[in-house]
Amino acid sequence: MSDDTDQILLEELKKNKVISESQYESISQRLDDEESNQQKAVHLSTNGGFKISTYDGSSSFEIKGRLLIDYAYYQEDQLNRLGSGTELRSARLGAEGILQTNWGYELELDFAGSSVEIKDAYIEYLGKLPMKFKIGYFKEPFSLEELTSRKYLTFMERALPNELALGNNIGIGFKTMGDSWTFNTGLFGDGFNDDADNEGDEGWGATGRFTFAPLKMDRRSAHLGIALSMRKPDDDNKIKFKNRPESHVTDIKYLHTGSIKSAEQIDRYGIEAAIVMHTLSLQSEYIQSKISRGSSQQTLDFDGWYIYGSWFLTGESRVYKAKKGRFSRINPTHQNGAWELALRHSQLNLNSHDITGGKAKHWTLGVNWYANPKLRFMLNYIMVDNDQFADADGDVIGNDDVNILQMRTQLDF
Amino acid sequence: MSDDTDQILLEELKKNKVISESQYESISQRLDDEESNQQKAVHLSTNGGFKISTYDGSSSFEIKGRLLIDYAYYQEDQLNRLGSGTELRSARLGAEGILQTNWGYELELDFAGSSVEIKDAYIEYLGKLPMKFKIGYFKEPFSLEELTSRKYLTFMERALPNELALGNNIGIGFKTMGDSWTFNTGLFGDGFNDDADNEGDEGWGATGRFTFAPLKMDRRSAHLGIALSMRKPDDDNKIKFKNRPESHVTDIKYLHTGSIKSAEQIDRYGIEAAIVMHTLSLQSEYIQSKISRGSSQQTLDFDGWYIYGSWFLTGESRVYKAKKGRFSRINPTHQNGAWELALRHSQLNLNSHDITGGKAKHWTLGVNWYANPKLRFMLNYIMVDNDQFADADGDVIGNDDVNILQMRTQLDF
Amino acid sequence: MSDDTDQILLEELKKNKVISESQYESISQRLDDEESNQQKAVHLSTNGGFKISTYDGSSSFEIKGRLLIDYAYYQEDQLNRLGSGTELRSARLGAEGILQTNWGYELELDFAGSSVEIKDAYIEYLGKLPMKFKIGYFKEPFSLEELTSRKYLTFMERALPNELALGNNIGIGFKTMGDSWTFNTGLFGDGFNDDADNEGDEGWGATGRFTFAPLKMDRRSAHLGIALSMRKPDDDNKIKFKNRPESHVTDIKYLHTGSIKSAEQIDRYGIEAAIVMHTLSLQSEYIQSKISRGSSQQTLDFDGWYIYGSWFLTGESRVYKAKKGRFSRINPTHQNGAWELALRHSQLNLNSHDITGGKAKHWTLGVNWYANPKLRFMLNYIMVDNDQFADADGDVIGNDDVNILQMRTQLDF
Repeated sequence: MSDDTDQILLEELKKNKVISESQYESISQRLDDEESNQQKAVHLSTNGGFKISTYDGSSSFEIKGRLLIDYAYYQEDQLNRLGSGTELRSARLGAEGILQTNWGYELELDFAGSSVEIKDAYIEYLGKLPMKFKIGYFKEPFSLEELTSRKYLTFMERALPNELALGNNIGIGFKTMGDSWTFNTGLFGDGFNDDADNEGDEGWGATGRFTFAPLKMDRRSAHLGIALSMRKPDDDNKIKFKNRPESHVTDIKYLHTGSIKSAEQIDRYGIEAAIVMHTLSLQSEYIQSKISRGSSQQTLDFDGWYIYGSWFLTGESRVYKAKKGRFSRINPTHQNGAWELALRHSQLNLNSHDITGGKAKHWTLGVNWYANPKLRFMLNYIMVDNDQFADADGDVIGNDDVNILQMRTQLDF
Repeated sequence: MSDDTDQILLEELKKNKVISESQYESISQRLDDEESNQQKAVHLSTNGGFKISTYDGSSSFEIKGRLLIDYAYYQEDQLNRLGSGTELRSARLGAEGILQTNWGYELELDFAGSSVEIKDAYIEYLGKLPMKFKIGYFKEPFSLEELTSRKYLTFMERALPNELALGNNIGIGFKTMGDSWTFNTGLFGDGFNDDADNEGDEGWGATGRFTFAPLKMDRRSAHLGIALSMRKPDDDNKIKFKNRPESHVTDIKYLHTGSIKSAEQIDRYGIEAAIVMHTLSLQSEYIQSKISRGSSQQTLDFDGWYIYGSWFLTGESRVYKAKKGRFSRINPTHQNGAWELALRHSQLNLNSHDITGGKAKHWTLGVNWYANPKLRFMLNYIMVDNDQFADADGDVIGNDDVNILQMRTQLDF
Repeated sequence: MSDDTDQILLEELKKNKVISESQYESISQRLDDEESNQQKAVHLSTNGGFKISTYDGSSSFEIKGRLLIDYAYYQEDQLNRLGSGTELRSARLGAEGILQTNWGYELELDFAGSSVEIKDAYIEYLGKLPMKFKIGYFKEPFSLEELTSRKYLTFMERALPNELALGNNIGIGFKTMGDSWTFNTGLFGDGFNDDADNEGDEGWGATGRFTFAPLKMDRRSAHLGIALSMRKPDDDNKIKFKNRPESHVTDIKYLHTGSIKSAEQIDRYGIEAAIVMHTLSLQSEYIQSKISRGSSQQTLDFDGWYIYGSWFLTGESRVYKAKKGRFSRINPTHQNGAWELALRHSQLNLNSHDITGGKAKHWTLGVNWYANPKLRFMLNYIMVDNDQFADADGDVIGNDDVNILQMRTQLDF
């Protein structure tokens, strides 16, 4: 019997004068005590994964994971071999939790390809104000698509200009937000494996991002964002930009600058816009990256952009989180799931002065079926237009206008 | 107080006319509601591991793992060094779950030797019919011993012909079963790390297995199985067969074909039989693998077989699962655990035409002590008879008739 | 309503003669049954991590982990580059459990640097006597500082002589203890990756440690310990000693013997002493390692020692566990956490006869803030005095008197 039902039985018994007022008081008091003890007890849930939390929220622990299984078929235009086939794109397990009320942590690991990649490993101070401090290995705040979890991306892979964005590094971060804006900033060293014997000091960088939602209604929202970043390479002063076509089964990176020497500083900026109107949405980003080099050499200037539209045939809307400045999970409204059509154009130009990393334009048609909120099937058809310099730093033949058909099965828990 | 006891108290109070009919009805109704809410609540259990599931079975999550610790002593007959010593044979952690009623997944990782190996990573559609669909990285349906979990093998290592069986690959599978039969089939690409830069398309294969249990009683069962597989290698067209003696501490693979070039297709078939009669059981398999090569070269023909008998001195029986077509966990009936004696003979012949991968015959005597269902100790003594070509592709001296004494401590949770 | 409250209600109803004696008996009996069933039910807890156990203690499962995030700044005295920067020092996840009452296990994995390292992987027999048997991969019982979890170390890194101590290997261990003493011993093979192709048998060793607590009061304790170890190298007979300065961001190991050939046996002994007096404590160890070599060569003799003092400004004491012979977690008594000041001197001498591995002396000043029992911030300033031979086996310039400033954020769950 729940405590509420117990209370009702007690009251009925008192009304019937079966128990006295003092008996009623004493037992009723015990019920109250039990209820307040339960506040300290734990709450459990599973929806394929597992979460435990205390009722007062002072402590929690959660296990999360995901599986992404891909197949890609490549139709090359030149005598290159991209290698059609299968891939386990992501196989993740992770833990996150809260302890002592104010402290959170996350540790998320990807084991795809039978190797380990740490995706997130940080400690967070939550506090009471709308501010958070983070220390550890996490994403630098740059680019809407980069910051949106792969689970919620509209296409199988992020667009070409993502190569110019920043990924995870070890650093400290500060975040604050209002109902319709967010501000994130951080100071970062390098990530892992960047510090071999005697090679000198790590690189470091500073990054900031501001987002604003001029429209923020139930199924209508608009997003604007701007991000800036400055980075100093490590003492080697060598950097590289390189990118697969928007497909990950292959290892061929057509766009490839090779090693850029004497790099002294990388300055990036990105602008972001997105709008959701019921079942329709548009999203676009532009990213520019400037590399300053030693005295006599010219500053390099790489840039890229993408724009895409999405349409939910089954009536759903893309879900924008104004307080986080990014998109989130789709919840199908029909029992048979949600269907989404999407079209994207993207460009990336890694040619600048003496560096000929290549230029590519992609058109992608995507169809997504969200069988339920945790499971989706994706089909992408990509038409690639590579220029003559898109030759994987000389490893393959340039000007390869590949067509790609790829599909994914995705489950998270 | 449980709801049942509450209901009894209520009825007694009504019988005693202490509460009125309408009071009884109202509180009784609340109890019913609470009970049906509890169907959605979770059930938890631990037996060294952890499982949580909703009462209606629509969702669950489980953590599993195992530890296998080995020691092996090698007495070589020739001037080879197999390297006696210790090994962590398996150190696994994994998660599996069900979500949205019909969808299951599993992700199991082995960390033995301080490296990661994904063992299973798949998504499954369960549905209501006796059919299952699978996508991801899982075992191709071939060979009784291969498909029986290492936790339930009678000997420490699978028999020699296991090298001709198929392991895990990324693909799609279909499974259906009756009370005494199973049918599994699938279409598979390659596994991991098989797709280096620019090497061309992945290999692929199709595999099917049918099992039937002519006898299916409590402690008497019989198993028959047949499996077929066709596989096309990747664009490199190079394949290899190689095998350790039935011991894993050493890295020496006496049987080793070296690289077989121009391989165009591999056709495999396997036949399986097993019988359990109370404390006794017999099990045997034969596997053949034919490799078709480019025009002028002869088709290679490798084969192997094993047969073994097992006897439980303490009265237990091996546990056959007719609906899965494989063997499962032993539950000791005595408090001091179960004792099993077993004897195996196995052969593998990797000599065919121009390829001299070697031939080996093994006799193995095994003693197992199952301290409880989750913990067992194994002792194996193996007499190896290698032919002159069993020289690890030239790395060691052939004709080495090694004797091996090895032991294992195994716990799973 | 809890069963106790139910019982009280029942008794009141009986007293009021609203229910009969027999009704009371019957329902009361049901309540007792329910209570005894609950003994078999599970108990759950989270404090950022997760633990489930049955009430009778026969089975349990626990998930544990930790995150250690470091930054180090190096000021070199010579033209060496240690590489200032960031590091994820530790990113661990692990499981441990008990099953079938008497059997325990632990599997703990470190993923720092996006690679896997097994830290513990063993099976334990617990039994009823104060004795434990262990099999698997675990620490050889040698050195107080080595056996104290990194989570509870006073300084960010273990002192220099730790290189002479033994780490984890695969083996069997036996442990027994009284209220104020412990005795540990074991027989061990090598760890992982020590057994490449055809290199011959693994090395092995035997190790024992005895500890005694002459003083064992609430906030006053004294520890004495002695440990001995004998180890035979593998058939290669090559060994190495090498060590970073007491900082892990860099990969430079100033002290480095290079490969010592013809090593036939390594004999180690260590003596330990520690005392805790309220907020003050002292701890010291001396370790000696003798390497016997083939006939004509002299026996090598390496040794090192450290001593340190710690003072809790906020009134806490270091926590000594006499039954384990090591130190444990600090629980801050103030809401603002605990502050600790510590000073250490350490020396390691790897010069002996023809081997010039170098000699180093370190002074370290440490400040720790324990924000809560599970979270702490550490700041270490280290002054290194390297001799001329401390040249990383010739890779860097010797005599480099580096100064190091490093900090850590540490959370465990």
